[in-house]
Amino acid sequence: MNQKTIGIIGGMGPLATADLFRKIVTHTQATCDQDHLHVIIDNNTAIPDRTAALLRGGEDPLPQMQKSARMLESDGADCLIMPCNTAHFFHAQVQSFVHIPLLNMLELTCQEMQRRGIRTAGLLATNGTVLTGVYAAVAEKYGITLLTPDDAGQQAVMDMIYRGVKAGAAVYDTAAVEAAALRLQQQGAEALVLGCTELPLAVERYHLDFPAIDPTLELAKGAIRFAGGTVLD
Amino acid sequence: MNQKTIGIIGGMGPLATADLFRKIVTHTQATCDQDHLHVIIDNNTAIPDRTAALLRGGEDPLPQMQKSARMLESDGADCLIMPCNTAHFFHAQVQSFVHIPLLNMLELTCQEMQRRGIRTAGLLATNGTVLTGVYAAVAEKYGITLLTPDDAGQQAVMDMIYRGVKAGAAVYDTAAVEAAALRLQQQGAEALVLGCTELPLAVERYHLDFPAIDPTLELAKGAIRFAGGTVLD
Repeated sequence: MNQKTIGIIGGMGPLATADLFRKIVTHTQATCDQDHLHVIIDNNTAIPDRTAALLRGGEDPLPQMQKSARMLESDGADCLIMPCNTAHFFHAQVQSFVHIPLLNMLELTCQEMQRRGIRTAGLLATNGTVLTGVYAAVAEKYGITLLTPDDAGQQAVMDMIYRGVKAGAAVYDTAAVEAAALRLQQQGAEALVLGCTELPLAVERYHLDFPAIDPTLELAKGAIRFAGGTVLD
Repeated sequence: MNQKTIGIIGGMGPLATADLFRKIVTHTQATCDQDHLHVIIDNNTAIPDRTAALLRGGEDPLPQMQKSARMLESDGADCLIMPCNTAHFFHAQVQSFVHIPLLNMLELTCQEMQRRGIRTAGLLATNGTVLTGVYAAVAEKYGITLLTPDDAGQQAVMDMIYRGVKAGAAVYDTAAVEAAALRLQQQGAEALVLGCTELPLAVERYHLDFPAIDPTLELAKGAIRFAGGTVLD
């Protein structure tokens, strides 16, 4: 067994953490428990809201993220991943506190878009992710143009994330989000990046239907490959 | 925040671990990330097969279970849970290695049956769980009679666990398991205990339909209550 251990800085949010873990398990080629990868998860719900910190002077999430990162490293993780796009604003700072690599969900997502030949995509994400430009900067490196929703569309996405998934709503009116996605496609988006880890859950739970890239899935696959597992598509 | 941290000794199996974690998140009353409970998971897939150890002289799973338990305790867990019914054969031995309580899934399941007024139930579980009598001993304390499948039924359950869920099969012929469940109901079982943590996944994935008690869900609820959260039914 030369397989490596995956550490997950979780809690951002908890359901997205569960989704990432499930995707790692279901996309690992295995025929029994012992074929699966060793994964350690710190679902650290003491990490403050990332968007609130970036845009509204909310509590700094970095100390709790670093605490989780160090705990996972000392527990034996060989790499780290974090299922929160907005948190990637702090990627370099979290990375600087540990000696193991912190895989980058945004890079993995853009690499997948490049593989699919996508040149223009729409970004559905939190205000924190959109306004800091963290995704656009990575996309640019790969020659991909990222379109963002208009104000009404952005508000619709934020509402679905916070009042829908994070609030645990079983049903949610997605008309405004679907209209925003359609406007982005009309502007040339070949696919929509589900750039907040609550969004793949919203797509599944609220039955949204548009061409999408799921960064959580790309992160799961990237972690499986890093750990020496075989990815099941 | 007087909430406690939950530690999960996971990997037995990995998908059952993901299922338990998801059930903790979706059954915790919360309106934002920070309302959720702190959970640390060691998905330790180096833990050998429990049934193989109990019945066929396979490698002892206890050292790896104890390793996970101690790691989680040192990481700050206030209680431990393990999403594997068969592993509960080793409950006292794992408990003896840590100073925090290891909640008992079998006790919580029998308490729920008592609450529902169930006096006779059928047990669907691995050979390891059935033949060691670990569930029957707990059920007896609560005045509950546990019926087990005949040989053909038991084999059908084992096959669905190992060749279905643990092997990652998307579809599976469940006719033999459904026939075994029906025979138990005809013998007086008011409900069937899904006494292997892969079985709630099989019920969901393969669309099995009979009155069931889900020990994973009872364990999730017990852990939420222990940690000071409010259970959403």
